[in-house]
Amino acid sequence: MNKHYEELAARMRETMMLASAAGVLAWDQETKMPERASGMRAEQMATLSGIIHDKLIDPQNDKLLAALERTRKGLTPSQRICVREWRHDYDRSTKLPRDLIEELARTSTLAQSAWIKARAADDFSLFAPWLKKTFALKRRQAEAVGYSGHPYDALLDDYEPGMTVAALDPVIANLREGLVPIVERIRRSKTRVDASCLTRRYPEDEQEALCTEVAQALGVDFTASRLDRSAHPFMIGIAPTDVRITTRFNERFLPQALFGVIHESGHALYEQGLPEKAFGTPLGEAVSTSMHESQSRFWENMVGRTRPFAGWLLPKLRRHFPQSLKGVSADAFYRALSRVRATPIRVEADEVTYNLHICLRYEIEKELVADTIRVSDLPRIWNERMQAMVGVRPKNDAQGVLQDIHWAHGMIGYFPTYLLGNLYSAQLRHTIRRTIPEMDALVAKGEFAPILQWLRTKIHRHARRFPAAELIRRATGKPLDARFFLEYVKEKYGPIYKITW
Amino acid sequence: MNKHYEELAARMRETMMLASAAGVLAWDQETKMPERASGMRAEQMATLSGIIHDKLIDPQNDKLLAALERTRKGLTPSQRICVREWRHDYDRSTKLPRDLIEELARTSTLAQSAWIKARAADDFSLFAPWLKKTFALKRRQAEAVGYSGHPYDALLDDYEPGMTVAALDPVIANLREGLVPIVERIRRSKTRVDASCLTRRYPEDEQEALCTEVAQALGVDFTASRLDRSAHPFMIGIAPTDVRITTRFNERFLPQALFGVIHESGHALYEQGLPEKAFGTPLGEAVSTSMHESQSRFWENMVGRTRPFAGWLLPKLRRHFPQSLKGVSADAFYRALSRVRATPIRVEADEVTYNLHICLRYEIEKELVADTIRVSDLPRIWNERMQAMVGVRPKNDAQGVLQDIHWAHGMIGYFPTYLLGNLYSAQLRHTIRRTIPEMDALVAKGEFAPILQWLRTKIHRHARRFPAAELIRRATGKPLDARFFLEYVKEKYGPIYKITW
Repeated sequence: MNKHYEELAARMRETMMLASAAGVLAWDQETKMPERASGMRAEQMATLSGIIHDKLIDPQNDKLLAALERTRKGLTPSQRICVREWRHDYDRSTKLPRDLIEELARTSTLAQSAWIKARAADDFSLFAPWLKKTFALKRRQAEAVGYSGHPYDALLDDYEPGMTVAALDPVIANLREGLVPIVERIRRSKTRVDASCLTRRYPEDEQEALCTEVAQALGVDFTASRLDRSAHPFMIGIAPTDVRITTRFNERFLPQALFGVIHESGHALYEQGLPEKAFGTPLGEAVSTSMHESQSRFWENMVGRTRPFAGWLLPKLRRHFPQSLKGVSADAFYRALSRVRATPIRVEADEVTYNLHICLRYEIEKELVADTIRVSDLPRIWNERMQAMVGVRPKNDAQGVLQDIHWAHGMIGYFPTYLLGNLYSAQLRHTIRRTIPEMDALVAKGEFAPILQWLRTKIHRHARRFPAAELIRRATGKPLDARFFLEYVKEKYGPIYKITW
Repeated sequence: MNKHYEELAARMRETMMLASAAGVLAWDQETKMPERASGMRAEQMATLSGIIHDKLIDPQNDKLLAALERTRKGLTPSQRICVREWRHDYDRSTKLPRDLIEELARTSTLAQSAWIKARAADDFSLFAPWLKKTFALKRRQAEAVGYSGHPYDALLDDYEPGMTVAALDPVIANLREGLVPIVERIRRSKTRVDASCLTRRYPEDEQEALCTEVAQALGVDFTASRLDRSAHPFMIGIAPTDVRITTRFNERFLPQALFGVIHESGHALYEQGLPEKAFGTPLGEAVSTSMHESQSRFWENMVGRTRPFAGWLLPKLRRHFPQSLKGVSADAFYRALSRVRATPIRVEADEVTYNLHICLRYEIEKELVADTIRVSDLPRIWNERMQAMVGVRPKNDAQGVLQDIHWAHGMIGYFPTYLLGNLYSAQLRHTIRRTIPEMDALVAKGEFAPILQWLRTKIHRHARRFPAAELIRRATGKPLDARFFLEYVKEKYGPIYKITW
């Protein structure tokens, strides 16, 4: 028993309890809060965040960490890992000067209003000055935090600790090189996929019952979870025993809510698989945004959009929507869920083209951080590269360079986590199929427990013990590699589009 | 502009924001929280409460208050009132020694488990030691807080600041003296009230729609409110723009949810009528628990259980429940809602006998605080007095002395607020009917706005400007007096039970 450790752990647990309380407020705000309460909610959140921040940057934490770093006597291996991660977090929170934090917060608020106006008016020039300012501040942030390679590394670290441009560049180059011709082949295929069965009438209440049923079947523990509606679907891990998901329903498009819920269930299963006893320490926390996304994408695509899953799902669907699914076979339903169609809009993209949208954003972000392209050139650059990579051209800037809120939020370095999540999920799929050769048969029977158990053992329970890159290497025996995703795409879409690669 | 005042106000507003955040968690816990989250929620709440308590007792508040008390230069009249009330609150929070606070909290937790067991086993002896300990601690609390008359005064002050045994005793004596013979006359009346129409089938979803409709008609602003389900109905004022109510439905007893919602709407209307700009100061807070109860009881009984209201409500009810209300006239419906029937259970009591249940508890609490009766004699004392006052005898202790959770909670001095709320509501009714002689006609048309406006002007907007006793005197021109309630009961129940008083 190390007294310094006990004190530090108690301080961190108290801070986590406050963050967890703030989580309840955040959930409430998106799902239940009366509309007129928003002003007061902002003040409640600001007060809580201020107290949490003050506790995180308290110099007493630094003193305790330093003492624990000087002598590790009495620390278990797990406690040493917590000290390592707490040091990382402490340095991240304290390296930014207060004036930069405030300037980032102010700019983000104003940039978001400007972005809303710019998008509504389809006028990039309204947003351009804010984008310029945001990236200038982000460069200052990178300098303050420090980096050894590319300044973008310092920003990536917020979402994928340890990830660098040097590590990411070759992976993304391979992915892009492999993917562009695949998309081109699919585009030229004469096979047409009919997805009209997905846009028939699907009443909301029935969808809601179905979604709960499916989430439960996947393994979400509803004694420690709930499903609600919100404008933008999300998962929030308030505590290991309180993990909530939301969705939105579209009576005329079945996959919106259903695959949204499967996606959020993937996130929830990760949170519910973290060691409950370690809550309040890094060994009770997800390792990175990318690894989280790998879990949601694994269940959404590697399980949900498969032929065996369609076979398991269809009889359930028929019970809820007997009319709309009359005469639809499991094969047809599976193909409908797997249609590839290039679109300039990232959030509407299918799983094949999606990563190309991210490649585009990653390149641009890197160059803006390095200050090697001009903000005013962005619309042109965006449209040219979109055409080259995805094969479509946005109708206008609102559907082009202005489509995402991330930059207005100041979230630079976030986009790559979507792509990494997809690559991790395909790499995990590859390994699971070798370890559990009967995976298809299990999915066809709705027996998801062995798959979940594998993820629990290989990913969830490790929390932040290893960096994401090492965790994936340990789980799959190989470092991150885009080829697993490329192989998956070929294996799946070859038969659908009658393509021999 | 007084700098000390500005600093104090900012500190109190921050504390209020945290209390308000804790309110969201409390609401969530009763309405939405997944069951397995309860342990974590207790810890989140304990962390928040600890921080709030530390902020309330911070000696810097005392210094600022002392400075403001020395020189009131630059303080507006409203600010002076805030200083007065903050001083009251500060002294209340700091006068209790920490070991007593902890002992009270620990005892309350253990007493509640003992109470649950005692009630289930119908065995008062299981609860008796905890009751003894609770009252011993409450005597210590009274000594620590101080009082000039009866030690019970110090406990009353937690719920009805400024109220004393000396002021309450004669009011309660008058009430009891007047009420016991009224109850006796009603009991002897040969007129039977048929309430069977209330126990027909009322589907939950229809009840929910109706309840929202009625709350809205009364004036609840649903852009700043919402209605949910919970095991025990409540109203919570999270912020002036976020006032939530809950109810529970019984398909076989219409008034449960409907009059529950009208009651909670009364509380909500008070909260929504408090000055929004003064939130975070005593001039944005309800004056007392009793005054709050006066508002809920006013809408529930003085508006809701009247013949004009029944006339307005019945057509709405018929739209939701055409079958169950076939052939029921507004007169019959009104009488069904107004049936008087003595019961040993407080929460099931009608508005006539209800106050006698409180008289009983008030007497016993006073005597236990003064240590003039023995805890072990309570079951006998309870049953004898219940027989003498209400005219019924509990079947057993579970339905007698063990029926309420309040004592186990350590809430001594709370019961009288129910009675005061009833008396205030009748006194307000008396005055409103003189000021707005067309009140019945307005209620019959569902035009509640003038009545709400009167309450807003005379009660709500004053917040904690005056103590409750003065507020009621200013609003009605008379000090608190039980005769208004006695007159109301005679006026209403004479015709129903064909009694000439």
